[in-house]
Amino acid sequence: MQEARYQLSGRVRASAAPPIPLAAQWAAEYSPTAADPLINLSQGVPGAPPPQAMLDKLADATRDPTTTGYGALAGDASLRLAVADNVERVYGPPAQEDFRVTADNAFYATMLALAEPGDEIILPTPWYFNHQMSLEQLGLSLVPLPCHAPDFLPSPKDCIDLISDRTRAIVLVSPNNPTGAIYPRELISRFAVLAQARNIALILDETYRDFVDGPPHHLFAKTDWPAYLIHLFSFSKSYAIPGHRLGGLIASRTFLAQVSKLLDCIQICPARPAQRVVEWAIGAMSDWRDGVKHELQSRQNVFRELLEGVDGWEVATGGAYFAYVKHPFEGVPSQKVSQYLAARVGIITLPGTFFSPPFDRIDEDRYIRFSIANVDEATLRRVPARLKRLNELWPTLPH
Amino acid sequence: MQEARYQLSGRVRASAAPPIPLAAQWAAEYSPTAADPLINLSQGVPGAPPPQAMLDKLADATRDPTTTGYGALAGDASLRLAVADNVERVYGPPAQEDFRVTADNAFYATMLALAEPGDEIILPTPWYFNHQMSLEQLGLSLVPLPCHAPDFLPSPKDCIDLISDRTRAIVLVSPNNPTGAIYPRELISRFAVLAQARNIALILDETYRDFVDGPPHHLFAKTDWPAYLIHLFSFSKSYAIPGHRLGGLIASRTFLAQVSKLLDCIQICPARPAQRVVEWAIGAMSDWRDGVKHELQSRQNVFRELLEGVDGWEVATGGAYFAYVKHPFEGVPSQKVSQYLAARVGIITLPGTFFSPPFDRIDEDRYIRFSIANVDEATLRRVPARLKRLNELWPTLPH
Repeated sequence: MQEARYQLSGRVRASAAPPIPLAAQWAAEYSPTAADPLINLSQGVPGAPPPQAMLDKLADATRDPTTTGYGALAGDASLRLAVADNVERVYGPPAQEDFRVTADNAFYATMLALAEPGDEIILPTPWYFNHQMSLEQLGLSLVPLPCHAPDFLPSPKDCIDLISDRTRAIVLVSPNNPTGAIYPRELISRFAVLAQARNIALILDETYRDFVDGPPHHLFAKTDWPAYLIHLFSFSKSYAIPGHRLGGLIASRTFLAQVSKLLDCIQICPARPAQRVVEWAIGAMSDWRDGVKHELQSRQNVFRELLEGVDGWEVATGGAYFAYVKHPFEGVPSQKVSQYLAARVGIITLPGTFFSPPFDRIDEDRYIRFSIANVDEATLRRVPARLKRLNELWPTLPH
Repeated sequence: MQEARYQLSGRVRASAAPPIPLAAQWAAEYSPTAADPLINLSQGVPGAPPPQAMLDKLADATRDPTTTGYGALAGDASLRLAVADNVERVYGPPAQEDFRVTADNAFYATMLALAEPGDEIILPTPWYFNHQMSLEQLGLSLVPLPCHAPDFLPSPKDCIDLISDRTRAIVLVSPNNPTGAIYPRELISRFAVLAQARNIALILDETYRDFVDGPPHHLFAKTDWPAYLIHLFSFSKSYAIPGHRLGGLIASRTFLAQVSKLLDCIQICPARPAQRVVEWAIGAMSDWRDGVKHELQSRQNVFRELLEGVDGWEVATGGAYFAYVKHPFEGVPSQKVSQYLAARVGIITLPGTFFSPPFDRIDEDRYIRFSIANVDEATLRRVPARLKRLNELWPTLPH
C-alpha cells in the first residue's frame, strides 16, 4: 500500500494524537459482562439527552427547509439577541450592550486571531488538552502556569512573572477542565486586572458555567470588559447537544471583526438547525438546566463520599462534570493507573499526564480525571467496588 | 465605548474582510419592487432545498437523542463506508480501498497539516477567496498560477516553473469556483503526474463534482493516489444542505492521522444529524442529484443564450453553479461594475477582483461571477433586461 510521499507540517507531526480514542483503546482488554459493564468516564459528555420538547423542536427546525441553507457568518441574529439577554441574566447588566457572536471552534479561531508563531500564551496546568494541542499546531509558545493540589487554583502572582513582551493572552477555564475547580469570583477579577494592566487578552472559557451557583464573576457587570476579555462558551453541555457543534464567543467589536475573517474560512456559518432551537431553549429550558445543575452537584457529593470508602483513593477537586482524583500508588504514573483501570476493572478515565507538561517529580503525577457527568448515579455507585478490585489486583500486575 | 486594548495577529488584520457580506452591502442602495425584486447571484447557494423525503429524514435523525451526542472524530463509520462506495461508483474502482474521513472545514485543516509559515502553496487564479484568505491567515505563501481567458484552465507547464523547495501543494478546484471551468480529465492527470514526480501534494477540491457528466478524472481508479492526492468534497451542494456544514476529505492514512489531530481541536466531531441522513441520501437521492445536474446544465445554456441578447456582456466560462461573465466596460474595474449592478439594477454578483491578486493590466479585470444556481430559471430570465438597463444608465453614472 502506497503511503503519502509529500511532506507534512513538522509542528503537527510533533503534536500529540487525540487522547480520547487512545483511552478508549485501553479498554479493549476488558471483557464487559451484564453484571460488570464498561463504565466510560473519559470524554465529558452529558449524561442524559435534552428533554423531549427540545428534541421535537430540533426535529421541526431541521425539517424547515430554511435551516438547510447558509446563515449569517456571525450566527443568526435572533440567537445572538437571546445570548445577550442571557448574559445579562447570568452576570448582571453589562457595562456595554453589544458584541456577541456564535460559532463553534471558538478557541482555535481566537488563538489564530490573537497570536502568530512565537507569541506566548499563558495556560494554567493541568490544562485542557485541546487547548494545548491547538497552540502546538499553530506554533504558539505555551507558557505553563502550574496549579497545585489541594485546590488547583492559578496564582495571579505567579502569573506576573511569566508575562513577557510576547505574551498575548492568559487562558482560564472555570469550572475547570480537568480538575473541576470552580474559580472564586475574586480570583477571576484579579486576573482581569492583571490582563488589563498589561494589555493582554484574558480568555475565559466558561463551557461548564451553568452547573455552578450564582454569577460566576462580575467582569461583564462591573468592568470595561471589551478592553481585555474574550469570553468563550459552548452550548454542548448546557443544552446536552454536543453532536450539534455550537458554541459562542463574546468580545469587543475590534476582535470580532478579525475573528470573523477566520470563521468565514473555517466554517462559513455555524450549523443552523440547533441555532434556532437554542434561541428558544435559553429561556424555556432554564428550569431543566437548574435540574441538571442540582443533579451534578449532588453527584459530586455522592462521588466524594463513595471514594471515602476506598483505601487510598480521594477526590482532590470537583465541580460541574469532573472530579480530579488522587490515586493511591506512589511512584506510579497516572497513565499506568488509567490503563489498568480500563483494562482490568472496566473504567475508562483520562490520566493527569494528558493534561500536563512532563512532571518534574513523579509524586505530582498522581491525578486522574473522572467525568462523573457521563453516567447515572447507579452506575457511579459501581465505581468503589471496581477501585477496590484494582487495589487488590495491584500487587499481581506487571509494572 | 471601550475597544480591545490587547494586540491582534498582524496576519489576520492584514487579511481581507469576508467578501459576501461586502457585496450584500452594495445592494443597500437598491429599492426592490414586486416587479423588480433583488436578485442575489453572489454566494453559491443551492437554488432549491433538498426533497421532502430528505427533510423528513433529517427531522427524524435530529429527534433521535443519539445524534445529540458526540460522534467519532473521523465521522460516523457507516457514512464513511457509504462515501467509499460512492467514490467507487463515481470514479471507478480505486487501486486502494481505504482512507476516508468526513469533516467540514477540510481546506483549513488540510493546509495546517501540510504546511508551516513560509511554505508555498500554488493556487491557480482566479482563486476561491476562502482559499486565499486561509493561506493568508496561516502565514503560508500563496504562489499564483495565472489562468487566462477564454478557458481559464491552469497550465501544468507554467506550474513547473513555480515549484520550489518550499512548495508543499498545488490546489485545483474543478468544476472551478469562480469560473465554472470544468477541468478536462487529461489536465487533472497531468497535474497528478507533476505532483507525484515532485513529491508535493495535489489538493483537488470537487465540491461541484455531482453536476458534471461522467467520471471527473481517473486518479482514484488508475493511479497510486494515496502518494500525492488529498481530495476535498462538500455535501453542501450535492445534497442542498449548506446549513448543516458537512464535508469530507479522502487521503492517505499517513495524512489522515495528522489531520485528525487538527480536527480534534477544531471540531471534535462533525455535526451529527446530517451525517446519518447523507449516508442514506448518497444512494437514495442519486436520481434527484441527476435532476439537479440536468437543470444546471440547461440553465448554463439558457444563461449563455440570454446574454447573447445583451450588448457587450458575454459568458466566458460556465459550469455547475457559476458563470464567469465578461462585462462591456473597458478600463472599468470589475468591482465598480458589480457595485453598480447591485446598487442600480438589483443584481448581487461577485467581481473578479475578489478572486484575484491585483491585476497587472486593467483589461484583465473584466470578469464577474454570477452564481446562476441560486434562483429559478424565471428569475434568471430577468437578468438581460437589467443588464440592458445598466448599459443605458452607464453614461450617466459617476465614475
